Order: sequence, then structure tokens, then C-alpha cells
Amino acid sequence: MIAVLKPGTTPEQTAFVIDWLARMGLQAHIYPGNGATVLGLIGDVSQVDTDLLNSLEIVASVQRISEPFKQVNRKFHPQDSVVAIGNAKIGGGHFSLIAGPCSVESEEQIISVARSVKAAGARILRGGAFKPRTSPYDFQGMGADGLRLLFAARQETGLPICTELMNIHHLELFEDVDMIQIGARNMQNFELLKEVGRSHKPILLKRGLSSTLQELLMSAEYIMNEGNEHIILCERGIRTFENYTRNTLDISAVPSLQSLSHLPVVVDPSHAAGNAKLVPSLALGATAAGADGVMIEVHNDPAHALCDGAQSLTPEQFAQLAGRIEKLREALL
Amino acid sequence: MIAVLKPGTTPEQTAFVIDWLARMGLQAHIYPGNGATVLGLIGDVSQVDTDLLNSLEIVASVQRISEPFKQVNRKFHPQDSVVAIGNAKIGGGHFSLIAGPCSVESEEQIISVARSVKAAGARILRGGAFKPRTSPYDFQGMGADGLRLLFAARQETGLPICTELMNIHHLELFEDVDMIQIGARNMQNFELLKEVGRSHKPILLKRGLSSTLQELLMSAEYIMNEGNEHIILCERGIRTFENYTRNTLDISAVPSLQSLSHLPVVVDPSHAAGNAKLVPSLALGATAAGADGVMIEVHNDPAHALCDGAQSLTPEQFAQLAGRIEKLREALL
Amino acid sequence: MIAVLKPGTTPEQTAFVIDWLARMGLQAHIYPGNGATVLGLIGDVSQVDTDLLNSLEIVASVQRISEPFKQVNRKFHPQDSVVAIGNAKIGGGHFSLIAGPCSVESEEQIISVARSVKAAGARILRGGAFKPRTSPYDFQGMGADGLRLLFAARQETGLPICTELMNIHHLELFEDVDMIQIGARNMQNFELLKEVGRSHKPILLKRGLSSTLQELLMSAEYIMNEGNEHIILCERGIRTFENYTRNTLDISAVPSLQSLSHLPVVVDPSHAAGNAKLVPSLALGATAAGADGVMIEVHNDPAHALCDGAQSLTPEQFAQLAGRIEKLREALL
Amino acid sequence: MIAVLKPGTTPEQTAFVIDWLARMGLQAHIYPGNGATVLGLIGDVSQVDTDLLNSLEIVASVQRISEPFKQVNRKFHPQDSVVAIGNAKIGGGHFSLIAGPCSVESEEQIISVARSVKAAGARILRGGAFKPRTSPYDFQGMGADGLRLLFAARQETGLPICTELMNIHHLELFEDVDMIQIGARNMQNFELLKEVGRSHKPILLKRGLSSTLQELLMSAEYIMNEGNEHIILCERGIRTFENYTRNTLDISAVPSLQSLSHLPVVVDPSHAAGNAKLVPSLALGATAAGADGVMIEVHNDPAHALCDGAQSLTPEQFAQLAGRIEKLREALL
Repeated sequence: MIAVLKPGTTPEQTAFVIDWLARMGLQAHIYPGNGATVLGLIGDVSQVDTDLLNSLEIVASVQRISEPFKQVNRKFHPQDSVVAIGNAKIGGGHFSLIAGPCSVESEEQIISVARSVKAAGARILRGGAFKPRTSPYDFQGMGADGLRLLFAARQETGLPICTELMNIHHLELFEDVDMIQIGARNMQNFELLKEVGRSHKPILLKRGLSSTLQELLMSAEYIMNEGNEHIILCERGIRTFENYTRNTLDISAVPSLQSLSHLPVVVDPSHAAGNAKLVPSLALGATAAGADGVMIEVHNDPAHALCDGAQSLTPEQFAQLAGRIEKLREALL
Repeated sequence: MIAVLKPGTTPEQTAFVIDWLARMGLQAHIYPGNGATVLGLIGDVSQVDTDLLNSLEIVASVQRISEPFKQVNRKFHPQDSVVAIGNAKIGGGHFSLIAGPCSVESEEQIISVARSVKAAGARILRGGAFKPRTSPYDFQGMGADGLRLLFAARQETGLPICTELMNIHHLELFEDVDMIQIGARNMQNFELLKEVGRSHKPILLKRGLSSTLQELLMSAEYIMNEGNEHIILCERGIRTFENYTRNTLDISAVPSLQSLSHLPVVVDPSHAAGNAKLVPSLALGATAAGADGVMIEVHNDPAHALCDGAQSLTPEQFAQLAGRIEKLREALL
Repeated sequence: MIAVLKPGTTPEQTAFVIDWLARMGLQAHIYPGNGATVLGLIGDVSQVDTDLLNSLEIVASVQRISEPFKQVNRKFHPQDSVVAIGNAKIGGGHFSLIAGPCSVESEEQIISVARSVKAAGARILRGGAFKPRTSPYDFQGMGADGLRLLFAARQETGLPICTELMNIHHLELFEDVDMIQIGARNMQNFELLKEVGRSHKPILLKRGLSSTLQELLMSAEYIMNEGNEHIILCERGIRTFENYTRNTLDISAVPSLQSLSHLPVVVDPSHAAGNAKLVPSLALGATAAGADGVMIEVHNDPAHALCDGAQSLTPEQFAQLAGRIEKLREALL
Repeated sequence: MIAVLKPGTTPEQTAFVIDWLARMGLQAHIYPGNGATVLGLIGDVSQVDTDLLNSLEIVASVQRISEPFKQVNRKFHPQDSVVAIGNAKIGGGHFSLIAGPCSVESEEQIISVARSVKAAGARILRGGAFKPRTSPYDFQGMGADGLRLLFAARQETGLPICTELMNIHHLELFEDVDMIQIGARNMQNFELLKEVGRSHKPILLKRGLSSTLQELLMSAEYIMNEGNEHIILCERGIRTFENYTRNTLDISAVPSLQSLSHLPVVVDPSHAAGNAKLVPSLALGATAAGADGVMIEVHNDPAHALCDGAQSLTPEQFAQLAGRIEKLREALL
């Protein structure tokens, strides 16, 4: 860590800061710069509050040299992590399509969709049983019944299932789920992160609507710090001033996260766009940018979906898209 | 709700949409516009998925006429709500200063700060016992011990206390807390909202870093829908492209929320700015803009605070600010 | 245009608004909604100030039915526009790589880069002669001398040239330029737009850092309204809270603009990322998402470039990327 | 300037960078950090491209120690600047209300408004003659005729006038204007900035919709670098994800800019809010936060204004607000 003192700082003031740092167990090396004094801090700087240091009257700026994330950092784990979800794999060259409806609505619906997406090449089935909704008056999901229908669809098709957990009280219900999704609104629900960190199940961690890449990685660090290494990062659009799309898909997050971390990165273009017509372009774009997987909403009857029908592809549209993704991946091998 | 059909829609297509709406129990009135067909929907439109309707091939746009929030809406409750927290009141002309350290660190610290802020005119003591931190390696608060120290400070000064709840498992521990804070990162932790909605305690609901005013009101609606009407809204800065301040204080949120809702609105300039030097200007600005209260971080020794010392005022700075706020309020009466 | 009146509006108030609208030449049809009164406005609504209408005490909301852009609107011009720049074409299935250095620095440099990018498959040479810089102390470009060197590079390679115009006084100097670039910071410099609208040259119009898609299209409308139809839209990243990349490439802009307008859309991943390592992933992503062209910064010696070397590819890196783009396009045909 | 090299950098690589820097005339001091190598650069670092340095394979991060703005920097000019506009003053304790219509519409209108706002305490008259509009089909202002009417209103009331310049060709027409406004959309129209920098007239420089405080100061630096020191900075709302208000007024900009620069700072709440009902709260908030002036749109008949009537106060509303601002300022003296 480096602290730059303001021009005009007296030797007494400098000595005061060095003494203050010493009481935190940090050694400070003085380095004279362009009319400014620079302090290099040596020791365990992970506990230093940079905002506080920065706010001292005589400090001009503070900069961490090392990133605050450790276990998810590619620097300390250069090989790609590969996460196994049932018989599917994601990361390290393994690409998987994750597909299914926003919400589980009925046995017929989920089994029908599961069959279609499997036939088209999907490796994992997604479907919401517990749904986070902005309004208390909106459909909140089928709950435990929805989970049972997902298990039935897995039984029928062999596809491992991925579904969202919102409440730490529900962990027991999720014991048979293949991959637990942590939704964007819960990305910084640290209590939930710690809980799934103790579960050893694959976790699909969605980026918050206005979370930086570093914050996403710090949330993954919370999970890994409890012992769970099976984490997949998911870019699903960020909130910006542009309202033509529901959110703005941050495609740069794919190569950026892959460079910062060893964890796999998948992209969810359906939630980013909020509009089925844009999904194929974005899914192809994400694949070409190097995503380790793409997660697509598919519904057998989007016009009657109870939730997010607007962004769902029909099984036919999905099959066509899956074919194009396959071709694109072959061309770029 | 109004749906505008695209120019060139055939009578058959229009009939199809009207039939589809009828199956959801909605009557559609046709109204011929400027070369477009407009449908006015009558019935219970609260369940209609506007995104889905909007995504139909022949629909150009959809607009709700009524706001999705009901119980917090000023339209249906024109008088200001007044929330009592111990012997303090906020709303309907009652203004309160809330002050205290970011984190409770020791009995000596919290009692010393509590005495100072009381002497300066604060009506409510704030202090964190459980702390949400971006990094798992940062200080996470004193937990239950911190709560006990807050109770001791209340015993000593008579100030009611406000502290943050992050985990539904902790609700019992909070039975004696006067006002429960829901932090910005949990504003859309709907499970937590429902839980405090069943508690009948005053709730300080902080706006999420990138939440719209409408989303904040929908989260308040979650709480009120469970039966708890004692809600105070808190603006604490939003995330924007500007990085000179930690967040951008959205001062317009004060008159805007007061016009949309009957709930009181307080402002937290300390977290918005992230820098003590800006806090007095922002606190005065918020008061002049009509806030029902201001929440300020105060620490007896900001340079040694375990958390967010950078944004804390000293007791002396707070006393001076409180005096200016008082004068300003008198001038604007 | 539709205006919704607030619940509780009296017939007298409604009559007042209708009369007020009539004086602007608009006929208002009354339509009774769900407890609200809806007015449908017929006539030339293009001159109505929706913000003003919206601010009337009794008006709850206002919505335009038709988009404010006309000449660039795909609705009135369903076929793709194709823009010819010298012997290159962009749009309607024609894809072109535009490549070259951020700034022209010397004859040797620009001719060397022009030869390399031509050999790798680029169809248009880019290079800055007049440079917009945030700081008055930064290199401002070679000016008229830079233009002369660009003409020499065109002479040498046959590649048409594209360079940025910042000042209406310079139009004469640009007479021989093949495509004029309007930079992001000048997207709403309406005087400049009108001027190039009278020039009949191909215009590459870059999206402003915080401009919506609709504002970009309105700026294109300014150009087209003066008689110039040869416009190419360029997505180059928008400003968001995320700082890992210089800007956030809005990949959704590609299919969105193509759906709203008949104009071609190219993507500039170099300025969006601000970091050469991310450029290949973003360029491939943009191509897969359907862009009509990609504009890439290439420099023979990025480490010594006078401007934006950080985001420039070497000629070798560009050749490799161009090959992959070619393969990808073949796979998706 | 400080550059941190990546862990694992070899002495040869370090020597390469030091040599590269030496060729730019910079001396690099090596300083061993916590497992990283830190270089402190001495010499004229103002010309170093930090992005480029940052992009070198072995460089982990780069940080400037000094701010890039010089002449507007408070460090080198600790006293407040005071700008005189006719007989009005802004800055250094002098506060002025600037008021008037968005657009000049007729002699009767501008003189009537000028008389009202003068009577209420305004010191400067604002009014648009040339108007930047997003759409080419919107009212573009009265042009030179509008200027003439402004001169007539000044003749009548003695109020100095402030109006926006958009086109360098118009400078001669503006010879008699008391303060030239550079609008938000032209904040980085560097050619225009240089031109008004040569004019020695007071300049009201509005912050761009998505410009950082540092970019605003760099634009002021462009003006001052040409010799014109009479600059007033204007915060007028920034673009964020929140759409309830037209823009988000960044109230923190007031104390922040005043701390970074010696230039006066005024606030325009009318354009920020886009809604007259919010203007009084925001104007009071800005005054309490320490603004050196407030600029308010006032129209004698907002419901018939040709432009931005939605955000205009009536003369009566303005008089009431001006009275409250006066009281507030007295209370905070």
C-alpha cells in the first residue's frame, strides 16, 4: 500500500503518521517524490481502512498495490477452475448451455421445456421456484412445489437443475438441487453467501445490478472463504442510464473476469435485455467474447408465462440459437 | 393501463389481443388514435406483466396509469405519517437528528459518543453491531456484544437506539432495539423485509445504491403489507459515474419521496460522501431541502475508528453542525 | 400522444386542458379509464412539449405513441441503408474493418500502419489529425499536416480514409476526406451536425458517452434533415459506474439500433475498453452480435504512441484478429 | 507519478521500463514494496500517458500524485475568485440569483419577466436566444432577435444578461452580452472553449450531463489557458439511472468544487429537476450547501412557454423562493 502525503507536510506531521501506522503493525518507508512525500507500507495491510487513511488531513491519496480478493484471484491459482454440475461441466474449455423457464409453473410445462432444451443441446435446466419480485403483489413462485417439479423434470431428462435460493431457512429444501443460484439482488446478502459457502454445492453467483467486478469477486470470496470452491460467476446486465434495454449487458465483464479470476464466467442475456428479440444477438456476442456458458430463458408459451415471458425464447427459437452457438464455437476453436 | 398497437395492425390481430386480455379478466376499450390503435384496459391490472404485453409483436408500447405502490402512496393517505422511536418523533413536522458511530467498539466509546451527541441535540443514537462489509476479511462488527453496549448507552442517556439487522435469525436479539435499520445492500432482501414487516418496530429503510425511488417505495410496501406501518425512508447516496464522492447524494429524493408517499424521509450524508469534510454542507443542504431528519456518523476518535472513520465527525464538529441545522430550521419555519 | 389525467380531475379542469390543447391545433378524444380520464391527442403532436403537458397540475402522465425520429426510422424506410466510402461499403450485409492509429504521427508511421492493416483485410484507414483531448496540455494532433499524411497513405494503399472533424472552420480542409467522423463529445454539437449535414460526405457518428440510443438517432436526424443520408452509427462504450474498463461497451446497441433504424452500425471496441488486451474479445463479440463493421486502433509501436497507445493492437495482433473475425462471419452466414 | 510493477517482474524487465521512461526525460526511483516493485517518477510527468504506462505487461497500476488541472486549482490560488458581471458579483462571499425564462419569446415577455425577477431580488437576467435542442424539429430559439430583446430588457431594468453561445461564428453577435453561457452539451466542445477563452468575458460553464468534476475543471482550464479568468462553474444535474427527476442534482459538487478550485460555483436546479415543483427545495438545499449563486427559470406564463415551461416558476413563486433564500443565508452567516 502506498500513501502520498500532501505537499507542504512537515517532518513532524510525517512522523505522526508513521507512528500511527506503526501502532497498526505497519512499517512505513519514506520515499521523496516530485515535491511530495510518498510512504510505502509494509506488513499486513489487509486490515487497513484506506478511506480512513485517505481522510487524514495531510494525506493526498492512498493506493492498494494488491487486490483485496485472494482465493478467487487468478494470480494465486493460474489454472482455470472447472465446475461440475451433475454430468455437465463449466470452465477450462468446457462450455454449457443452461436453459429453462423463468418460473416453474406446472409439471407439464417444466417437463415439456426440459425435453425441448435437452434435445437442442442444453446441458443444465434452470427454473425458478422461489422468485424475488420487486412488488409484494407479484407472483412469488411455486415454492417447495416448484422444487418437486424440477426434480421430476431432472428424473425425466437427466438434466441437472439450477434454481434460486433466497432464504437461509430454505437450505434444507435445496439439498437435492444440483446448482444453487444466488440472484443479483442478493449478491451482497453476506449472510446468505456465508451459508452457501458452507454447503459445497455448485453456486451460480449473479452480479448485482450495480456491482463492480471487484465487488462480485469479493462476494465470491465470501463463499470460497467458507470452504466452497464450486463457484460460477454470472454477468446479467448492469443498471445504466440507457432504458431501451432493461439492463445493459456488460460484455467486457467476460474477458475481464477471466483475467482477474480462475472462476468460470457465464452470461445471462435474457435478464439483461428483457426482450426476447435481442437475446440471440447477445447470446452469440457473449459466446464469441469467450463466455464459459450462456443461460437462456425458454418457455413453451411465452405469451402466457407467469413471469418474464417477454424475454423468453420459444423452444424452436432456442434450438435455432443453440445451433448457431455451436457453429460459432467450432469456427473460433 | 393503456396499450398502443403498432400502425398497420389488422382488425384480426387486434381481436386476438383483446381476446387474450379477456382471458386474464380484463376488458379492453378500443380507441382510435393518430394512425394507431389504443387499448384502454379495465379490471384488475395489477397482475398484468407489462413487459410481456409490450413484447407482443403488434404492441408498440404499454403504460400503467396507476402507481404500483398502494399502502405507502400519498394518494390514499394524504396526511404525513409520524413515526415515534422511543421519545423521539420523525415526520409531520417533527425533525430528529440521529447520530453515533458507524460501529460500536467499546462501552467507553459508545457511552462517550452517546453523551456528546445528546448534549448537542441528537434525539436518537445510531451504532452498528452487525456490519455488512464488502470483504470477508474486514471487521464484521461486535455482534450481540455490540447490542448490549448500545442498551447500556441508552440506559445511560435515555436516547432510543437504531442499529442494523442483516440476518433473520437475529430478530430475537433485536427485541429491545428501538428502531431497526435495513441497510442499502438489503433493500431488496425481500425475506428480511417480510420478517421486519411482522415486527411492528420502527424500521429505517435505506435506499439501495442503485435503486429507483419507486423500488424503494415497493420495498416499503413489502414491510407495510405485512402490517408494519412504522417506516422511515432514508436517502444515503446512489452509485453514479462520479467518483470524487463515494456515492452521489440524491437530494431531489427528499421532495420527491415526500410527494409520492406519506412516509418520513431522512438523509444520511456521511455514507453518501464518504468524507467528513463534505458532511456539514450536505447535512445543511438536506435540511433546507425539507428532510424530516438527518443521520450523522460521529466518533470520538475518527482516526482510530474500526470502520468508516473517514466519514465521521468529531463530537465538536457535530455540535457545531447541530447548531447550524437548528438555526436553519428556525429561519425556514 | 396520450395524456392521463389524475383521478379526481373535475369536468371543468378536463375542459380547460382540452381547450388549451385545441389552441395548439390538437383535437383531444376523451376516454374513460380505470378511475382515470385518458385523453388521446390527434393532430400535429410533434411540436407538443411533453414535459410541459406533464407538469400541469391535473396531468398524471403523458406518452408519445410515435418515435420522435423520422428520416432515420426503419418504419419509414424498411430496407437497410448501404453507405459507400470510396471503394468500401458498410450496411445491408456489407461488413468492413476500419483500422489505423489513434493519431497520425509521421509519414512513415501512417504508411506503415496503412499497409499492414490493408494486408490483414481492413477496408478503411482511420487516423486522427485533429484530436479532442480532455486536457489543454495533451497532444492535440498534427492538424492539417496530419490530413496531408493521411492523403499520402491513401495514395499509397488505395484505402479510403476516415478522420475526425471538430471545428466548422475546418470543413474546407476536409474536402478530400472519404468519411468524416463526428466524435462522442460532439454528438450533440448541433451546429457541427448541421454543417456536415450539408456536406453529402459519409459521416461516422459516434454515440456520446452518456447518450441514449434515441438521442444518437436524433443527432443522426439532424444530419439527415440537412440532406445528407450517408450516415453510419458507431457504438463506442458508455459511461457507467464500472471503472475496470474505460467505458462499458453497450453490445445491445447493435441489434437495438438495427431494429430502430435503417442506418448501419459499427462498433469501436478500442475506445470502449481502453485496454488492448480486451479488444479481440469485444471485437469478436460485436461481430457475432451483428455489427456492420468494427473499428480497431492499430499502431506499429503502441508503447511509443503519442495518444491512446494503451488500447492499440500491433499489426500482428490485428492480422490475427481480422482472421478470426472472418472465420466467425463465415460460420454465421 | 507512481507506477507499481507486477510481482515477479525481473530486474531486466524493470530496467527496460526505467530506460523507456528515461527516454521521455523521467527519472525513476526504485522502491521495494510488499513483494512488489514501486517506481517513483521524477521530472515533467504532465505529458505521460498513464493509460499507456498502465497497459505495459509488467505494470500493475499507475497513479498520478498531482492533479492535472493547474490554473483553476485552489492549491496554487488559495483565495476565492470573484467574478463581476456588470454590477453583480459572484464568489468570495458574494451570492447572486440569476433568473429568467428558458427562451426569449417576445419583447413583452422578456421585459415583464426581467422586471419581476429584479423586484424579487435577482441580480442577473438569463434567457436563451440560441437553443440547443435534442430534436431538429424543436424550437431552436429566436437567434439574433432574441439577443436584441435581451439588450432591451437590460436597458429597461439595468440587469446584466447571461445567454448561451453555441457557435463560434456568433461570437461577434455576443460582444454586448455580459456573461456567456457554455451549455452542458458543449462542455467538451474544446474549439468553443478556446474561443471564449480569448474573449475576456465572464463565462458560465455548465457541467456536462455525464462529466466528472475533474473533467469540468479541465474544461475551465481550457478557457483559463487562453487568458480568460472570469469563469463560474455551474452544477445542473447529472445523468443517472433514476428517472423520476430529469437529471440528478449532484449537491456534493458544490463543496467539492469549492475545495478543488478557487472558482465560484452556482447551481441550476431548474434543469436538474425538470419539474417546477421540486425547484424550491433544491434551490434552498443548494444555498444551504454553500453555492455562490442559484440560477432559476422563471416565466410569466409557464403553461404557454415555448421551451421548458415544465420547470419554470411563476414570478410569484420566484419571489417567495427568493425571500426564503435570503432568510436562509442570513441564518447561516
